[in-house]
Amino acid sequence: MMDRTTYELIENYMLSWMKDSAHDKDHIYRVLYNALDIASGEEMVDYDVLVCACLLHDIGRQEQFEDPGLCHAEEGAKKAFNFLAANGFSEEFARKVSSCIRAHRYRSDSRPESIEAKILYDADKIDVTGAVGIARTIFYGGQLSEPLYTVSPDGVVSDGSEDKEPSFFQEYKYKLEGLYTKFYTARGTQIASERRDAAVSFYESMLKEVRDSYSTGSRIFKDLIDGQSEGQSNM
Amino acid sequence: MMDRTTYELIENYMLSWMKDSAHDKDHIYRVLYNALDIASGEEMVDYDVLVCACLLHDIGRQEQFEDPGLCHAEEGAKKAFNFLAANGFSEEFARKVSSCIRAHRYRSDSRPESIEAKILYDADKIDVTGAVGIARTIFYGGQLSEPLYTVSPDGVVSDGSEDKEPSFFQEYKYKLEGLYTKFYTARGTQIASERRDAAVSFYESMLKEVRDSYSTGSRIFKDLIDGQSEGQSNM
Repeated sequence: MMDRTTYELIENYMLSWMKDSAHDKDHIYRVLYNALDIASGEEMVDYDVLVCACLLHDIGRQEQFEDPGLCHAEEGAKKAFNFLAANGFSEEFARKVSSCIRAHRYRSDSRPESIEAKILYDADKIDVTGAVGIARTIFYGGQLSEPLYTVSPDGVVSDGSEDKEPSFFQEYKYKLEGLYTKFYTARGTQIASERRDAAVSFYESMLKEVRDSYSTGSRIFKDLIDGQSEGQSNM
Repeated sequence: MMDRTTYELIENYMLSWMKDSAHDKDHIYRVLYNALDIASGEEMVDYDVLVCACLLHDIGRQEQFEDPGLCHAEEGAKKAFNFLAANGFSEEFARKVSSCIRAHRYRSDSRPESIEAKILYDADKIDVTGAVGIARTIFYGGQLSEPLYTVSPDGVVSDGSEDKEPSFFQEYKYKLEGLYTKFYTARGTQIASERRDAAVSFYESMLKEVRDSYSTGSRIFKDLIDGQSEGQSNM
């Protein structure tokens, strides 16, 4: 079984790839904790493989960031295999961990096969559900300086569903809104379902607030400016 | 009265200070639209002063960013006065706009006195309420790479109220949570009040989600690692 020394060896390797981002590190621990919660409802789970795969699942992020043609799941799988093989873990163990990491990506072609791979996949996806998923999506948009929403030429705030340009509303419509039914485990499905209302209600509240501002304000504005365009300025 | 040409002159000056940030520009238009909504419930409003003050209220942001000892409201007030005086507006008009801008800051010592200054203050603060206020706060945290929350040494996720380090939860507790009763206008108070539930419920949902992950997961984790610390590794 994994002891604290082994855990810390793997944790420190993970941290060495996370640079100084508290955001990224916190995601890793949430995924680990979600995975342990999910695992407690499953049988025949190899916790050594699971804990190790959770800790290392995003170590390929930097490679994908530097070259968007690379897949961070594939890169992370290779790096994890090499790290584990070089540190005295068995080749079978390194291979099991590596295949969990390879299959964890939302849009990946590799499907999770083992129970540990399915748990990692669900645990990672749970972190995109609910209020946490909303917060992470907006936070990431801030890091990339992407807008929260877009406004069409006629002044209407888009709900995101037809958007070509990246924005928080677009990401919500394209990625967050529809992911709640696609989990592998019972507990994963349950946690996601419990969190769904918080995400839906935040999106709907925000859309209403912004649309109310734009529709009321721009109507008054048009009356003010265009209704007076033949008047005189007294400024 | 302000016509479209005058409006565009002022708008273009505003845009020249916003660099490429869609986030910042969108804030300006929301404040303008909120202000026009609020103004429709007030009497004796000088719409020329109000529109101009809304457009220019954040043009001192860059100065404050480069030197945090400077106040963006004070810097913006000076820049707006000089711009208006140099572009043929009367000194009285430039002075009125400038004093609205000087008094718009949440923590400013200058209190808004004129009705236009009170409307700008409320319109700007409304953009920190509700779901929009939550989104802007998290977005800004992403730009600064500040964490969403902090975890105490004993593994408990802080609710933000005792935090010394910046985080989204800290910002919610110190700034967002308590601002709903501090508006100058009736309509400002009303809009803020309508938006309050969305903010409270998002914060509470997110805190619960994160705390549930940490408490369930870290309990299982401790049993797994420390409960097995005298066992053997089979990896």
